[in-house]
Amino acid sequence: MSRLPLASRTTDLVGSVIDSSTSLLARQRHDIVRFAMGSPAAEAVPSQLLGHLAATELAAPDAYDYAATEGDPRLREALLAELDGTTDRTTPERLLITAGGMQGLDLAFKLFVDPGDLVVVESPTYTNGSATAMSYQAQLLEVPVDEEGMQVDRLEELVTHAGRAPKAIYAIPTFQNPSGASMSIERRRRLIELTRRWGSLLIDDDPYGRLRFAGTEVPSLHELADGDPLVLSVRTFSKIIGPGLRVGWIDADPALQQLLINAKQAMDTCTNMPLQRLVAAFLEGGHLRDHLTTQQAAYRERKLTMQAALEDWFGALARWTDPEGGFFLWVTFQESVDTEALFEQALADGVAFIPGNAFSPSKFFPNALRLCFASSTPDRIREGVARLRTAYDHLVGAV
Amino acid sequence: MSRLPLASRTTDLVGSVIDSSTSLLARQRHDIVRFAMGSPAAEAVPSQLLGHLAATELAAPDAYDYAATEGDPRLREALLAELDGTTDRTTPERLLITAGGMQGLDLAFKLFVDPGDLVVVESPTYTNGSATAMSYQAQLLEVPVDEEGMQVDRLEELVTHAGRAPKAIYAIPTFQNPSGASMSIERRRRLIELTRRWGSLLIDDDPYGRLRFAGTEVPSLHELADGDPLVLSVRTFSKIIGPGLRVGWIDADPALQQLLINAKQAMDTCTNMPLQRLVAAFLEGGHLRDHLTTQQAAYRERKLTMQAALEDWFGALARWTDPEGGFFLWVTFQESVDTEALFEQALADGVAFIPGNAFSPSKFFPNALRLCFASSTPDRIREGVARLRTAYDHLVGAV
Repeated sequence: MSRLPLASRTTDLVGSVIDSSTSLLARQRHDIVRFAMGSPAAEAVPSQLLGHLAATELAAPDAYDYAATEGDPRLREALLAELDGTTDRTTPERLLITAGGMQGLDLAFKLFVDPGDLVVVESPTYTNGSATAMSYQAQLLEVPVDEEGMQVDRLEELVTHAGRAPKAIYAIPTFQNPSGASMSIERRRRLIELTRRWGSLLIDDDPYGRLRFAGTEVPSLHELADGDPLVLSVRTFSKIIGPGLRVGWIDADPALQQLLINAKQAMDTCTNMPLQRLVAAFLEGGHLRDHLTTQQAAYRERKLTMQAALEDWFGALARWTDPEGGFFLWVTFQESVDTEALFEQALADGVAFIPGNAFSPSKFFPNALRLCFASSTPDRIREGVARLRTAYDHLVGAV
Repeated sequence: MSRLPLASRTTDLVGSVIDSSTSLLARQRHDIVRFAMGSPAAEAVPSQLLGHLAATELAAPDAYDYAATEGDPRLREALLAELDGTTDRTTPERLLITAGGMQGLDLAFKLFVDPGDLVVVESPTYTNGSATAMSYQAQLLEVPVDEEGMQVDRLEELVTHAGRAPKAIYAIPTFQNPSGASMSIERRRRLIELTRRWGSLLIDDDPYGRLRFAGTEVPSLHELADGDPLVLSVRTFSKIIGPGLRVGWIDADPALQQLLINAKQAMDTCTNMPLQRLVAAFLEGGHLRDHLTTQQAAYRERKLTMQAALEDWFGALARWTDPEGGFFLWVTFQESVDTEALFEQALADGVAFIPGNAFSPSKFFPNALRLCFASSTPDRIREGVARLRTAYDHLVGAV
């Protein structure tokens, strides 16, 4: 590698543990229970319907041309109609179609972060989100999350202590990845106030908001910000239809649209056209709302199943969160338990998860882990949690 | 915008004229002849066949999950088999599936370019290619292109004059965009020698190489480099199947693979899965080679038609290139002709092209333009060139 004239930022590119675990999984027993990836259940993806729609949409002669960089007009129109009446309602001049939520984060950090800039992330936070900020050489400040999401009082203290305003604040306000926690409306309002005081960009990443199965809806940061140019919202179809689509959107101040287009052209020219058409057809057919209802019921059952299994197998050995939606439980063991070691053992015992430290650049969570309850059936969830206890006993010694 | 805490690089984000022309086109007469975008002919895209394959591939339950970041194993295998026996033959540990060729360029510049680094580009060059380098704050050095592609002697002189080695050299060696020129084998060898002497990264962007309709094949830079880690090759299905797919690949030294994976995860997590499966099915069915044969014949006829029409309408007023493949003719007028003004007039007269200055960060080509002959039927090509003459007469005055 010494001959290669790499850029200085290249040393800041962090590999995701998710990738490693994918490779690792390939080497493990075939029937492994997969609590690792944050994917919808395969049986929850409407693949038969999508295949049926694809037979028509992907036979159109213009389905393979470049799309407009801001998104295919048909998808943009269908999406605006779909969002009307939701907490994410928006307008055409704020909308840019992206290659999933991840590209929304890449665009936001590329447009706003200079090397050395302070960027606030939740602790724990989404691995690839903090990785993107680091790829633009941000200096990260981790702010703890509790049952009500990011601790906004601590945010203010930590920024005061840092002695400078953050350039950007990266928040996952609803059914947070990985904790499952949601910010209360009071904290959301206070976060927007602090953003305004500091002149920071607030990146509102909310991929799970429509997967609520308990409690009552809280307005999105987008809605509460009421058009404030400092709030940029990142959304995606990954969790509500399928992550492989790589179709999402940004909702941002109209003054940013041309810059976002310019930046996206220099990333991937446009988002793939055939799947924009496929998603448009899915929305036009009115399928999303029914699909969300089905998913919400399934994920509620799966969460309850996973919590009950954890109670059975880990009642006195761990504690876990109680999310009102989304995909994830966050499990914390006593301090002596090393979940990276447990990860290796668990793979051998037939269950996969993501160790807590993957969600913290400073590795603040050596004794925690994330479980995705969305991808597995209730039976498999019970089997997976039982295997996790087997792995725990192998590692720690039976108790 | 003044309230927004933009990064310093954001001022270096250049909007592509292609986007402007797309928006412009929307406001113009409906039957405009489109010589602007570098897209395959809509009738050359095998959309019926792809739609048929999609009905099966896109109904599979796992088609909407995350793909491995390095690419879906099925596509990787089909692609390796397809490349076997071509000048782009490669091996699994060198291969990374990307969101089209454009993401290949974004990855290369992101991994290698620090602010202020010298990056060589051809003059003229691909607009979004130079835009990507600028988005990482490269300082660009333009090296002239003639009938045999980049003038490698001039490259050496210009680098000597600059007084420092380039960090990267961005080359489109075959049927170059926008000139249509191809580098001779002598120049290709010499370019690799200079790359080695300087320790630069050579970005070998070759989207059109398989669309040869005249002359004899020249080995790719990838083949000539014979595994040199300083050569990174960027390829795409955009021009040989359809650009809307956003599926391409990088062929690079194995030591770079993990860094490329890390960087790509922080851009878009993975390339979309359903269209990776669709392209895999297309390759597995043995459809690509037949399709290339059909396309090559069509594009040969279209090039000859466009050259004949130019001879009829612009015989004494302009000169143009004679490519042996690809999509483009480069047309040069006398110095007094302003092709940006001609662009506006041409849209009003029903034909679109890209002005020469769009292909040069220093705007060295005010009296040249790019015509894409691939997208239009021979009849439309004749009509479009006649309209171009009408626009010319409107602008310059009939001669």
